[in-house]
Amino acid sequence: MKKVGILGGGQLGRMLLQAAVNYPVETFVLENDPQAPAAHLCHHFTHGDIRDFETVYQFGKGLDALTIEIEHVNTEALEKLVAEGVSIFPRVAALKIIQNKIHQKNFYKENDLPTSDFVVTNSLHDLRLQSHFLPAVHKVSNGGYDGKGVQIIQQAADIEKGFDAPSVLEKKVPIKKEIAIMIAVANNGETALYPPVEMVFDQTLNLLSHQLCPAELAEKVLWKVEAIGLTAIKKLNSPGIFAVELFVDIDDNVLVNEIAPRVHNSGHHTIEGNYSSQFDMLWRIMLNYPLGNTDCILPSALVNLIGEDGFAGIPHYDGLEEVLSIDNAFVHLYGKHQTKPGRKMGHVTILSKEKQDLLYKANKIKHLLSVRS
Amino acid sequence: MKKVGILGGGQLGRMLLQAAVNYPVETFVLENDPQAPAAHLCHHFTHGDIRDFETVYQFGKGLDALTIEIEHVNTEALEKLVAEGVSIFPRVAALKIIQNKIHQKNFYKENDLPTSDFVVTNSLHDLRLQSHFLPAVHKVSNGGYDGKGVQIIQQAADIEKGFDAPSVLEKKVPIKKEIAIMIAVANNGETALYPPVEMVFDQTLNLLSHQLCPAELAEKVLWKVEAIGLTAIKKLNSPGIFAVELFVDIDDNVLVNEIAPRVHNSGHHTIEGNYSSQFDMLWRIMLNYPLGNTDCILPSALVNLIGEDGFAGIPHYDGLEEVLSIDNAFVHLYGKHQTKPGRKMGHVTILSKEKQDLLYKANKIKHLLSVRS
Repeated sequence: MKKVGILGGGQLGRMLLQAAVNYPVETFVLENDPQAPAAHLCHHFTHGDIRDFETVYQFGKGLDALTIEIEHVNTEALEKLVAEGVSIFPRVAALKIIQNKIHQKNFYKENDLPTSDFVVTNSLHDLRLQSHFLPAVHKVSNGGYDGKGVQIIQQAADIEKGFDAPSVLEKKVPIKKEIAIMIAVANNGETALYPPVEMVFDQTLNLLSHQLCPAELAEKVLWKVEAIGLTAIKKLNSPGIFAVELFVDIDDNVLVNEIAPRVHNSGHHTIEGNYSSQFDMLWRIMLNYPLGNTDCILPSALVNLIGEDGFAGIPHYDGLEEVLSIDNAFVHLYGKHQTKPGRKMGHVTILSKEKQDLLYKANKIKHLLSVRS
Repeated sequence: MKKVGILGGGQLGRMLLQAAVNYPVETFVLENDPQAPAAHLCHHFTHGDIRDFETVYQFGKGLDALTIEIEHVNTEALEKLVAEGVSIFPRVAALKIIQNKIHQKNFYKENDLPTSDFVVTNSLHDLRLQSHFLPAVHKVSNGGYDGKGVQIIQQAADIEKGFDAPSVLEKKVPIKKEIAIMIAVANNGETALYPPVEMVFDQTLNLLSHQLCPAELAEKVLWKVEAIGLTAIKKLNSPGIFAVELFVDIDDNVLVNEIAPRVHNSGHHTIEGNYSSQFDMLWRIMLNYPLGNTDCILPSALVNLIGEDGFAGIPHYDGLEEVLSIDNAFVHLYGKHQTKPGRKMGHVTILSKEKQDLLYKANKIKHLLSVRS
């Protein structure tokens, strides 16, 4: 049996290990929290910091392959492991581009990939000189994650909310749609595209309401999404699974927003919605099996289950029974021991032939289900 | 989080724990082999014998619920645990009926459930008196499993192959089809039936070739299968998940063969083939959630992967890559450390709208895939 390690033991690791159950593989997890969602689902759990050179190196030594749950891992240790024959998914060079928001934007520019205009700012002082560039989004180059390290700078008065550290300032795009496409790359360079996903926003609250798959796109826009997504991933030159997040602007231009070189929230619906899920696919890639079938079984919607504001502590799931009584609603709770405002605690996928049914059920589930303490 | 234990840590426990990942539940496994397929997928593994009173009692104490992977567990310990408030799935009374083949046959008879004629034999001496009853099948009353403890007694000359122990001798039925139906029973008595499965035999080899779901049955035969299956399970009077194995004879009579009061090989296709799998369903029952949707997503075939004759030792899977390149073929390997002739090492489920496609792919997979050492 091949030995494969995961850096990080959160919900992505949890669902990855759930998919590993189908295959002959010995699994290892490195994670700081022994009660993390994935901690009990591997053969070997190591308690430690994924950002520490020695910890990552010792963990990875002797494994056949390693993958990541989050970009912010110690790449120096990964480089040493590669030199000793460990395969890393994604390759370290690709990871280093993605880890750093400045490198990521430069990568798009150098490869003629359409992306929003940007300037690099190294300090708040730099940012203050960019008031002509507003409205814009300020993103810290290192360590941002899940909305952290991102600040909208609508006007000059907002500038002091920006980061006093190396960052990119991206011109705000007049967005019509936010799209994500999952792309798989095998060791031999073969690729497979999943049908793209659309992020549907609640116009009143200006919050992500749910994800819809396949995205509703005019054919020509779909072609652009696929072509730009695939080109971006091919230029990264790495096997693995990737999420490309894109904007469609009001003129139907398609722009790359960000890439995640790993399993991703925008691919969770593939567990029930597609023949080969993003998690299944990554195992196929790491174990050197043929790529799976990315076709949709049925259209799907996905609702994230987020820790409610004002509640922190042991999670209590309200409305779970009602949601579980809805036909073809698939509940995934991540088993986190503590809820916090805004924390991702689970998700629900809905399958249906009819879009109206998906929307109705997604809306119903959003109102039924909550996480409090 | 509820605390739920599983007695046994084989492939059934493995797939049950795979489904548990979706729910907030703390999992416990009691199993004699620390390298068993399910051993690394629970929160708490206990090394011990599921047939030993004290071991089972200590394991179950303090848990909210317990289920089984195999019938041959210590029921005295379970009775004591019930008295202390632990819920057992299935109920101990149901388990005791099923555990013993004589009780099981008497249960069918007492409840007017059609089943093959039988006599009880307590010794080889008893059996020798039954030559007029042949051809028949001799089944040892206790401890038989997966074809062990079963002997076909075609004619008088075969009698010495029978069991010198309490057994049932069942008259051989002129079988047209072998059918299995999975049935779920909630704590409140609600039931849900899965579409029945047909065991397709290789006529030349007289071996199970594959399972097909839904079974091909005339409407009236289907009604009998459902009615008899449901009646049998209702009479068992227990929440849980059940497999009822039935014969359809050449006159389209439907007879109960055996019941398994647990997840079962004839329900493995439900992982990909049905909206709520048998494993998902058992968690819903044990965690007191509403029953899931038993509808088929698509018709399915299932091929068991059996350790090849003449090979014992560390398993090597031949043909895995070819099988994984077949669209909508889902491979499940159980991660057993040793293969043995006849050992269940995994299974492959195929989904397709077209029956011919299922048959073609099932046949192809049977010839491609093998387990040797």
